[in-house]
Amino acid sequence: MSTRFTVGIDFGTASARALLVDVSTGREVATSVYEYRHGVIDDRLPIDGHDVVLPPDWALQDPDDYIRALQATVPAVVAEGGADPAAVIGLGIAFTSCTMLPTTADGTPLCNVPALRAEPHAWVKLWKHHAAQPEADRINVTAERRGEAWLPRYGGRISSEWFFAKALQILDEAPEVYAAAGRLVEAADWIVWQLTGVESRNACTAGYKALWSKGTGFPDAGFFGALDPRLAAIVDEKMCRTILPPGSPAGGLSEIAAGWTGLPAGIPVAVGNVDAHASVPAATVTGPGRMVAVMGTSTCHLVLGPDERFVEGMCGVVEDGVIPGWFGYEAGQSAVGDIFGWFTERAVPPLYHAPARDRGTSVHEILAEHAAALLPGESGLLALDWWNGNRSILVDVDLTGLLIGATLATDAPAIYRALIEATAFGTRAIVDAFVAAGVAVDEIVACGGLPGRNPFLMQVYADVTGLPISVAGSSQTPALGAAMFGAVAAGRDRGGYGSIVDAAARMAHLADEAYQPTAAHRPVYEILYREYLRLHDLFGRDPDGVMKTLKGLRVDAAAQRATMTAREPAAAR
Amino acid sequence: MSTRFTVGIDFGTASARALLVDVSTGREVATSVYEYRHGVIDDRLPIDGHDVVLPPDWALQDPDDYIRALQATVPAVVAEGGADPAAVIGLGIAFTSCTMLPTTADGTPLCNVPALRAEPHAWVKLWKHHAAQPEADRINVTAERRGEAWLPRYGGRISSEWFFAKALQILDEAPEVYAAAGRLVEAADWIVWQLTGVESRNACTAGYKALWSKGTGFPDAGFFGALDPRLAAIVDEKMCRTILPPGSPAGGLSEIAAGWTGLPAGIPVAVGNVDAHASVPAATVTGPGRMVAVMGTSTCHLVLGPDERFVEGMCGVVEDGVIPGWFGYEAGQSAVGDIFGWFTERAVPPLYHAPARDRGTSVHEILAEHAAALLPGESGLLALDWWNGNRSILVDVDLTGLLIGATLATDAPAIYRALIEATAFGTRAIVDAFVAAGVAVDEIVACGGLPGRNPFLMQVYADVTGLPISVAGSSQTPALGAAMFGAVAAGRDRGGYGSIVDAAARMAHLADEAYQPTAAHRPVYEILYREYLRLHDLFGRDPDGVMKTLKGLRVDAAAQRATMTAREPAAAR
Repeated sequence: MSTRFTVGIDFGTASARALLVDVSTGREVATSVYEYRHGVIDDRLPIDGHDVVLPPDWALQDPDDYIRALQATVPAVVAEGGADPAAVIGLGIAFTSCTMLPTTADGTPLCNVPALRAEPHAWVKLWKHHAAQPEADRINVTAERRGEAWLPRYGGRISSEWFFAKALQILDEAPEVYAAAGRLVEAADWIVWQLTGVESRNACTAGYKALWSKGTGFPDAGFFGALDPRLAAIVDEKMCRTILPPGSPAGGLSEIAAGWTGLPAGIPVAVGNVDAHASVPAATVTGPGRMVAVMGTSTCHLVLGPDERFVEGMCGVVEDGVIPGWFGYEAGQSAVGDIFGWFTERAVPPLYHAPARDRGTSVHEILAEHAAALLPGESGLLALDWWNGNRSILVDVDLTGLLIGATLATDAPAIYRALIEATAFGTRAIVDAFVAAGVAVDEIVACGGLPGRNPFLMQVYADVTGLPISVAGSSQTPALGAAMFGAVAAGRDRGGYGSIVDAAARMAHLADEAYQPTAAHRPVYEILYREYLRLHDLFGRDPDGVMKTLKGLRVDAAAQRATMTAREPAAAR
Repeated sequence: MSTRFTVGIDFGTASARALLVDVSTGREVATSVYEYRHGVIDDRLPIDGHDVVLPPDWALQDPDDYIRALQATVPAVVAEGGADPAAVIGLGIAFTSCTMLPTTADGTPLCNVPALRAEPHAWVKLWKHHAAQPEADRINVTAERRGEAWLPRYGGRISSEWFFAKALQILDEAPEVYAAAGRLVEAADWIVWQLTGVESRNACTAGYKALWSKGTGFPDAGFFGALDPRLAAIVDEKMCRTILPPGSPAGGLSEIAAGWTGLPAGIPVAVGNVDAHASVPAATVTGPGRMVAVMGTSTCHLVLGPDERFVEGMCGVVEDGVIPGWFGYEAGQSAVGDIFGWFTERAVPPLYHAPARDRGTSVHEILAEHAAALLPGESGLLALDWWNGNRSILVDVDLTGLLIGATLATDAPAIYRALIEATAFGTRAIVDAFVAAGVAVDEIVACGGLPGRNPFLMQVYADVTGLPISVAGSSQTPALGAAMFGAVAAGRDRGGYGSIVDAAARMAHLADEAYQPTAAHRPVYEILYREYLRLHDLFGRDPDGVMKTLKGLRVDAAAQRATMTAREPAAAR
């Protein structure tokens, strides 16, 4: 049989990437990246004739960028891979989430409706749009008061990033946009709709971001009505109750989309999926016990289990949400690579920048070399990895970073190592929460941007968690996973696979490198981890703790600063 | 009456400075600095024919450097000042302390006795020789067990830097040197002995470093015997029970010393004194209520009171120890300028180094500009200023630095400000301890290297402590104070003064700049200070606290490192 291909398209924060994959081997034949023309829109709307400035914490995108991405990248990978378009048997996508938008009933983004183009709420709300915190707070308070049964599935608290917080913000602040929205839809589902001409909804975003579960569906109208009477019928009015598990075919590629992509019309397109979650089978994981850690600026932890357990501070548990047949658990650390990036940019002296320049390498590399030469405990340092709050297991954005143990002899490599160790302790705390709740974690499979670049970091993670760590063979697991689900949507008859398990067995691979815990390092890290937990509970579980006071003072000062800034121009006039 | 002068000589850690001062006005006419040829000896002895390597934590000096300093600097200031040597009516010295040495009965340093020259214990032990910790521990345990009445005068614990810890280390490790020592003497007293040919002992070093008090003298033979039977008679065998208050004439300048200095033989030389303590009258303080803060790499706090109180964690209280007629209290912060120095060198990115270079200023200056623009509380940060342990009020060298509140937006100026605030909170904790014990502190008078260079820092101190802060007019208060005590030793009849109070009234001045607490900043700093105290007690008063664990791991790792290093050369052979 001649070579068959699928295409996976990963819609990220700043760009989208297409990957052409050999279905029989998983070989990544060609890739192409499109930088969104309007990127993250967090300053002003990219429109002519109006100057619409966005408030703080807003983050929007232009849905036309997603279409342009299809047009640019899919033909490019087919051409670069030298593939016959007719050999492409399916398509899958992975998307950031919860990234959502209001559309007309036929799927036209409201921001493309001329009358609404200058209205920020008509645009795509990107996952990191953080302006719906009041709405999230209202949802949490209301759910807790009503004893909503779904709340424990989300670690007891939902995020301002999620679907109904964003939907409620539209209703609160732009009721006319809410009213005009025939549909409120995840961008992952919207792009599949554009590809197929058929509206579909996927279990991954529905489960993790829109409070849906296979057993009980969405929260009921009573709950939504308690938030706002106008919201009571949101599901029936603006969403869809048919939810398909990952790998399900959403429909065939439409004629229009065939034109955009150069692929044959009619080939199956898989339902939408989330980038991190699509990485799981791409990292060879299709069953319990092996936790996938998608490690980049932040880390997302995903693990499968045979039943529903309630894990402290997890982001969510969704049946069929990751791999059909399993409960998929998600947890996360809100800053990992971001902390190391902050450190090298903001706190590393010229002493380490110069050799990085001279050797044509990164400051990270130089620091890692020095840091790796230290023994565990030798730095005398310990940190709490909360530079961007704590997602799991404390679910508290107001927590902040802490470094303890500094002396006049402390140097940058020692701090760098302490920060790496802190993120490893954070992962360990998450692993322990899963294990304590009865969800097995026997191994970590790492993917994302960090693992391949930083073997020292990976070894610290193995030493700290006491778990063996494998690394995914692909550096593009979201796109590979999307392509794999595309092969499942295509099905065995068309040269694809009957299940994601079968697809993973052929298309997903581990890298050669793997990390075993260093026995000699384990005792010191056990001691350090106990101290980490002591600080974790001391600062993380005290509602009147020092971090809360500092955050309060920071907010007060920001308010005072705003007044000063507001006064200054007046005074200058 | 024609102008009269005195010379003050300040023997520091790396160099000695002479200052020629106009007795009637305090005008600093000329100054000269001599860098010690052998500086701080912490690596190997500076002798020919033997390679004597010093263990860790050792810090020695060469007494010949002190003589060379006299020869170099005193003639230089007289010449530069255009003064008639006959117009110089007196001499005073200030010295680091406890800096001590063993000598023969006639004052010859044992390190100048050929048979003992290769013996490290025969040399001067500099104040920062820290290898006598086991001896200090023994002294503390023994004193506590015996309920020694003098212990509370030293905040309940003596330092490894002090006189009897160092003397006991000589006895422990080099009993032959101890036996050969006709005298064990503070370098402050030794240099006066060399200047006058007469042995004298001063109340300042005796009181603050050698457990002497005006009321009860030295600890008794029973205590010394309990430490080691051979130590029982140390005071009568190797020291002196005649202790003179500051400003007392020790004797006239000897013919030999007249030759070294070019000054007239016979002019009065004041008894020895400590650098920080000599600064008190030079900062215009001769009575209670006004605390002198000698601010440099570390800070020394000195305040006078009418009676003896027991203050938590103070370094010592000595009647007549600073200004005759008063009880002089000392406390300290073990790192202040050192923390800022550490930060700029070790944790400030190139972003702030480049403008400093371009503008020909320091990184401190650049950071202070940015930091000063922040509002109190705006950084969101709080630090514990324990980069070199905590001297007062916790007296614990194992405590370490802490920074809390970091986010991905935290920048170097914010941390710089937090570190400055932390040292101010440390000073506030010391002030509060004095006030709580009934020792009044109504104002701070700052001197030393930091105040003149850093008005932003001084303003933070005023805002945090809620006290007005004055700044000494002289940037060389130890040498000025020494010259003032030289004028007191000379006495009124020779054109000097009858008391240090009279001398201070004419010779000591405040700078024009002064700092008042900013009313608008006080409430936020009260909140931050409460949080500082919370962290202070949490980490500083817990014998099983996180910092102790980290220190233990650091010590273990250092031991392992030493083994590895010891093995490596063997393996390489």
